[in-house]
Amino acid sequence: MKLWDKGFSTDKKIDIFTVGSDRELDLVIAKYDVIASSAHAKMLGKIGLLSEKEVTNLITELNEIGRTIEAGTFIIEDSFEDVHSKIEYILTEKLGDTGKKIHTARSRNDQVLVAVHLYLKNELTQIKTQVKELFDTLILLAEKYQNVLLPGYTHLQVAMLSSFGLWFSAYAESLIDDLYFVNAAYRIVDQNPLGSAAGYGSSFPIDRDFTTREMNFETLKYNVVAAQMSRGKAEKSVAFGISSIASTLAKLAMDICLYMSQNFDFITFPNELTTGSSIMPHKKNPDVFELIRGKCNKIQAVPNQLALLTTNLPNGYHRELQLTKEIIVPAIQELKSCLEMMNFSIASIIVKENILQDKKYDYLFSVDTLNDLVLSGMPFRDAYKKMGQEIENGTFKPKRNIKHSHKGSLGNLCLDEIKKKMEKMADH
Amino acid sequence: MKLWDKGFSTDKKIDIFTVGSDRELDLVIAKYDVIASSAHAKMLGKIGLLSEKEVTNLITELNEIGRTIEAGTFIIEDSFEDVHSKIEYILTEKLGDTGKKIHTARSRNDQVLVAVHLYLKNELTQIKTQVKELFDTLILLAEKYQNVLLPGYTHLQVAMLSSFGLWFSAYAESLIDDLYFVNAAYRIVDQNPLGSAAGYGSSFPIDRDFTTREMNFETLKYNVVAAQMSRGKAEKSVAFGISSIASTLAKLAMDICLYMSQNFDFITFPNELTTGSSIMPHKKNPDVFELIRGKCNKIQAVPNQLALLTTNLPNGYHRELQLTKEIIVPAIQELKSCLEMMNFSIASIIVKENILQDKKYDYLFSVDTLNDLVLSGMPFRDAYKKMGQEIENGTFKPKRNIKHSHKGSLGNLCLDEIKKKMEKMADH
Amino acid sequence: MKLWDKGFSTDKKIDIFTVGSDRELDLVIAKYDVIASSAHAKMLGKIGLLSEKEVTNLITELNEIGRTIEAGTFIIEDSFEDVHSKIEYILTEKLGDTGKKIHTARSRNDQVLVAVHLYLKNELTQIKTQVKELFDTLILLAEKYQNVLLPGYTHLQVAMLSSFGLWFSAYAESLIDDLYFVNAAYRIVDQNPLGSAAGYGSSFPIDRDFTTREMNFETLKYNVVAAQMSRGKAEKSVAFGISSIASTLAKLAMDICLYMSQNFDFITFPNELTTGSSIMPHKKNPDVFELIRGKCNKIQAVPNQLALLTTNLPNGYHRELQLTKEIIVPAIQELKSCLEMMNFSIASIIVKENILQDKKYDYLFSVDTLNDLVLSGMPFRDAYKKMGQEIENGTFKPKRNIKHSHKGSLGNLCLDEIKKKMEKMADH
Amino acid sequence: MKLWDKGFSTDKKIDIFTVGSDRELDLVIAKYDVIASSAHAKMLGKIGLLSEKEVTNLITELNEIGRTIEAGTFIIEDSFEDVHSKIEYILTEKLGDTGKKIHTARSRNDQVLVAVHLYLKNELTQIKTQVKELFDTLILLAEKYQNVLLPGYTHLQVAMLSSFGLWFSAYAESLIDDLYFVNAAYRIVDQNPLGSAAGYGSSFPIDRDFTTREMNFETLKYNVVAAQMSRGKAEKSVAFGISSIASTLAKLAMDICLYMSQNFDFITFPNELTTGSSIMPHKKNPDVFELIRGKCNKIQAVPNQLALLTTNLPNGYHRELQLTKEIIVPAIQELKSCLEMMNFSIASIIVKENILQDKKYDYLFSVDTLNDLVLSGMPFRDAYKKMGQEIENGTFKPKRNIKHSHKGSLGNLCLDEIKKKMEKMADH
Repeated sequence: MKLWDKGFSTDKKIDIFTVGSDRELDLVIAKYDVIASSAHAKMLGKIGLLSEKEVTNLITELNEIGRTIEAGTFIIEDSFEDVHSKIEYILTEKLGDTGKKIHTARSRNDQVLVAVHLYLKNELTQIKTQVKELFDTLILLAEKYQNVLLPGYTHLQVAMLSSFGLWFSAYAESLIDDLYFVNAAYRIVDQNPLGSAAGYGSSFPIDRDFTTREMNFETLKYNVVAAQMSRGKAEKSVAFGISSIASTLAKLAMDICLYMSQNFDFITFPNELTTGSSIMPHKKNPDVFELIRGKCNKIQAVPNQLALLTTNLPNGYHRELQLTKEIIVPAIQELKSCLEMMNFSIASIIVKENILQDKKYDYLFSVDTLNDLVLSGMPFRDAYKKMGQEIENGTFKPKRNIKHSHKGSLGNLCLDEIKKKMEKMADH
Repeated sequence: MKLWDKGFSTDKKIDIFTVGSDRELDLVIAKYDVIASSAHAKMLGKIGLLSEKEVTNLITELNEIGRTIEAGTFIIEDSFEDVHSKIEYILTEKLGDTGKKIHTARSRNDQVLVAVHLYLKNELTQIKTQVKELFDTLILLAEKYQNVLLPGYTHLQVAMLSSFGLWFSAYAESLIDDLYFVNAAYRIVDQNPLGSAAGYGSSFPIDRDFTTREMNFETLKYNVVAAQMSRGKAEKSVAFGISSIASTLAKLAMDICLYMSQNFDFITFPNELTTGSSIMPHKKNPDVFELIRGKCNKIQAVPNQLALLTTNLPNGYHRELQLTKEIIVPAIQELKSCLEMMNFSIASIIVKENILQDKKYDYLFSVDTLNDLVLSGMPFRDAYKKMGQEIENGTFKPKRNIKHSHKGSLGNLCLDEIKKKMEKMADH
Repeated sequence: MKLWDKGFSTDKKIDIFTVGSDRELDLVIAKYDVIASSAHAKMLGKIGLLSEKEVTNLITELNEIGRTIEAGTFIIEDSFEDVHSKIEYILTEKLGDTGKKIHTARSRNDQVLVAVHLYLKNELTQIKTQVKELFDTLILLAEKYQNVLLPGYTHLQVAMLSSFGLWFSAYAESLIDDLYFVNAAYRIVDQNPLGSAAGYGSSFPIDRDFTTREMNFETLKYNVVAAQMSRGKAEKSVAFGISSIASTLAKLAMDICLYMSQNFDFITFPNELTTGSSIMPHKKNPDVFELIRGKCNKIQAVPNQLALLTTNLPNGYHRELQLTKEIIVPAIQELKSCLEMMNFSIASIIVKENILQDKKYDYLFSVDTLNDLVLSGMPFRDAYKKMGQEIENGTFKPKRNIKHSHKGSLGNLCLDEIKKKMEKMADH
Repeated sequence: MKLWDKGFSTDKKIDIFTVGSDRELDLVIAKYDVIASSAHAKMLGKIGLLSEKEVTNLITELNEIGRTIEAGTFIIEDSFEDVHSKIEYILTEKLGDTGKKIHTARSRNDQVLVAVHLYLKNELTQIKTQVKELFDTLILLAEKYQNVLLPGYTHLQVAMLSSFGLWFSAYAESLIDDLYFVNAAYRIVDQNPLGSAAGYGSSFPIDRDFTTREMNFETLKYNVVAAQMSRGKAEKSVAFGISSIASTLAKLAMDICLYMSQNFDFITFPNELTTGSSIMPHKKNPDVFELIRGKCNKIQAVPNQLALLTTNLPNGYHRELQLTKEIIVPAIQELKSCLEMMNFSIASIIVKENILQDKKYDYLFSVDTLNDLVLSGMPFRDAYKKMGQEIENGTFKPKRNIKHSHKGSLGNLCLDEIKKKMEKMADH
């Protein structure tokens, strides 16, 4: 790694500098290169550029490589620039000239493009599943704690009546919005770019509809220049989706850290989810949630990283487009681990009852008490005057049995409607 | 504006500092407040909190205010904090107590939320229309110039055969991807937030389904806390959409500026679209396209501005959420003007013919010539060797009548398929 | 503003699009163009390209223009593209050909560059003064409240003893760090770029040392291409400086909003600095501080806006460099108003005494009590065990008269040393 | 890495999630923890909390650890959370209770803070050296090629006469500006934070002046809360510095990629610095420079990543502050490798002579030819008219022996003055 240290030859220095972390990142791409190479081989067979036998041999070897990848025994040695050259090497070693022929009518750029599209599709599907799991957990918590009241804040000032039911399900409903972006990103990467070659197509009579069906893409990115331009753009699209989820998780984590402070003391967590100290037994440090917050805030920076990397580059391939992988791959992994940790941890939340009995929350009820007088027929101005005086005199007695009944309020959480909205989203 | 200058009283300073540019920005929000206020008034009538007469009077006055807004004569004087207080003032002046009653069961926060949602919906619809217009222009240009060839670059090096047909339609197809995000953003703002009051609902028996239908929202944002959390989030969602379009426009503008340079000399524009100098008659400065590029790069920074503004704020209203307007409103206006200028200007593009006759483009054909030999049966290695020698000897004659025929290639642009994809997108 | 509306001619549309908000922004630049034009005129006199008489006439008229700018009566009508063309127009109208001659050996680019440098220098000086005023206020508050104790938090959990003295002076000392960046930015803009013409110098024998002295620049930006490249770079440098200050103000504002919450209740402010409600008399909304926080977070986004605007542009002038003004000028104004409001408001802070008497802060003293046992000779392990048992048994009595005496601790704030550091910074 | 996969226990999952990449990153921090621990141990001896013997033993063992770090044999096993716990473990294993005593009067937070400050100081020093090396290379190239002319562009249009001398030295002079920010960052991290303990100081009578001298810090960060707040802030300050350098490198890299395009063809590089293809022998892909451009654009995103991570966090330690390391450490390494590669590669640049003989550059001379007429006494208007006619008639003959003689122009590069400015900068 210490490129700048002396002792490396020129060539070695340039190699280290240009290859960067490609080999490591390519391990997550490997299985998708196998899928795309198989589809490409079959297509070459179909249009007569490979014999049936050659196709069969290639598929057999690619399947074998796929198995080593699955088993975790696939390795990209330092002598290979990336996963694509390693796979080509294996095929050629096993099959001789046939191994080389698979590269007919495609280019390295092609291979990376299609493998990254397949990878992103698959990751978005996993992320969607994880978001739905978290959604389900939050809905369950909202049902369970729907009657436990909380102060609601505006300007961080005690303001209005709220509840754990409202709080949990608010984040559930918000997650649906994030999935609209995940869906949009999915649509963008669900277009087959294979065939763009170096970004301008080729004179080979390739059958792009065939590979599209074979790899299970919804449609083609038809225009080969558009396909090439999706490098960077596809990653940024996914970044919008994951950054949207990340902002929801970060906000929830911030609430949790605040609510765990002794100054709020609304919730707590079992010891194994917090860190503490035996001489400060009150301390329950919410490290997991602080790290979710921080990691998600880092993820929110990803769209901008990709924008800075790609802005003002004219169309056509540029070598730094390779760097998009080292931005998006760790961000996806990080979001997935944050989703897992949030879902896993929040399920163990311990909710404090009777929070509102503290005197500082008395005025929480003042707005509703006023509304109640209005609803019972007293003109607003008179009601307002009467209450203002009571408060000034110290005789104000909050009416604590207030009912909120409209849709989406604490007495009518509409969890079924929210669940239906989530189901409907999934269809898009 | 010069708050820091002496001569302002304390109260005045605080007023200037807190109101900021609200009055100016609220002019674009005004008509949506009228729509939302009308819906709210009718709903209050339906649930019996206003009499039929009161509703009629309110609607009449709101319509009248709507007309002044339409006519451009509506003004928010310095004595009003924002559009909402100005409208309330007019209603109270005209209708007395009835004017005040419209504020029953809603809050300022409510009003801003719903008006901003309606505003964003409408703007996204306009933007979609403009993007489709630009798409149509680009498809037309692609058809018109489908046979005019261009060098294609990789690493900014002359690499492969391309064409104006490919170039124009690549941007057309890319714009479809951007619209997936616009659709996602639209779905997010197409949820009625009205009824969240200060962010926690109220004890009034409001009918949120009624206002949802009345204002033509697809659905409700049910949970009132989720509705409140959409402040900042709705704007950021729209920012993702417009930033996506902006990145496509910026890239196209970059290509144009480059292609207009004397060193490329692929295209030009009529004089009225460029600036020049009589003693430098060769100079055609592409100011319009440079500004589109710059403005669009600024727009690409908008999601991050909103993220920095809202990150790590716990749930609940915070005053700075008001600042989202001064970020998103000008960005939307800027994108719309960029779309208009791009569509308007690119239609006048003048395309140079015979670009490829310059000797520096000879090697453009080398890859295809090689492929041709391969397709005609010569083993790849022999073909490669033969051509390498010809090139070294200087006897290489590029085969210029190469055909690219596969889907999405320069000989088969698939413009109809791309148009169908755009139509299908519109349905989502 | 509604460019996209119908009814504008082509030329008008392009004019609106390209001029943008230049005229408005140029009003803040105007006085610096006068200064630079005067210096340039005198220099042209010195090298014999203007006669003494011509110089005198030009200076007289420029001074007159300067007076109208000072008086606020200088106007840039829509018929002028920018401040520079307006001033040229006035000079030509008054002095005929002499007025035109001032443009000898410089270009518009030159004029903008030098005027912006002078503007930024002056603004940075003002900002430095304002930061020092806030520093002084914070030091005064630290002195005044040095004995009022506060809980110190880690992970938002009650952790260690702190004090208002520590809290106020921490922000004071942090501001010094921000000024190192302001100094760096100042040095960057304190280099005379005049003479770069269109970015490549000219064949006129101009005397750049003369204009450097005349305009009071510390040195020249010698290389004319480097001078040109400072467009965008100078603005970004200033953006680093103001964004650094902004992050300190935003953090302080966040603390204030939190400490004003009923759940902390450490501080409050007089009514005129907060907003409230007569039926929620407990509510003191810290709007001013929320807006400082929000505006400062927006300012933190400015370096990135400028980076996105300028990244990947090759050297040489590009039209969008003009857009840097509309990013940096409002950000500077906003920071100055935030500094003023923070300084003005925090001076009125009302600090609560006896905060630590609340039982939830008892464990604050546990670490120090332990340390005290250690200092008194008890082995750490025994002390730890003893205290752990007392805490478990509920017999722990915090030793509340703990002394922190080391440098920078709550008993030894080192305010004089911090003040000296600030003075030393000023010399750099 | 695959946290989300099944098969990990709860504790293990949380451990992986919270430790993250700390162990790997801590290897770069290790030697600075040894330095800081040694200083702390000596100080404890001085104030009597450790015996002379204990200090000697600790220093001996710390030196031994330092040697293993230097030798690259120091390892942080998975059983240790970070470098600090590993070093503590070694000391305790070797020295028993004495090993534990070193932790008296400091905390983990303290250790990280001071080690990171020392690390950043050292890195900034190295970066400064590398920048000066690149500066020297650029000045040498400017001297060597000062007479080779280039077209200068505005709006990417051929505009004015320039030269390689101007181009190389423009970047040299720009780098000086970047170093002002490096100096500012250096000053910020050159303040001893040790003693802040958990962020609020302690009741131990530690001697912070002693550790300041011992570790060679210029001064103390006095206030312990300010010292704690420098977590995140110190890293962001360094990020400003390195992002400033990165933007200069990225721009130079962009110029190089453009100038290497066949459409410019101003420069080239030896084969070992480019990649190519034997059937496209004209192609010299500037991968190294594209990657410098891309990596530097990524580095430009770093200040924003840190801002998003830390914004709106109230004062006091939060666990995600640990994530700053995984942002800043790789960015510093990347910048250093970019500086090395740029310096190493640009030294081999091959400059094309006689570029301007191409007809498309004829008008380059028009402005200077006009100025020449003016200088020779012809009124500007007449000169302008004459030349306009000649150009229109096609009789314009550019005067190619134009002299630019003013300071900083292509005939008077002021390399000595620029070198002096660099020397002066170094003193700050």
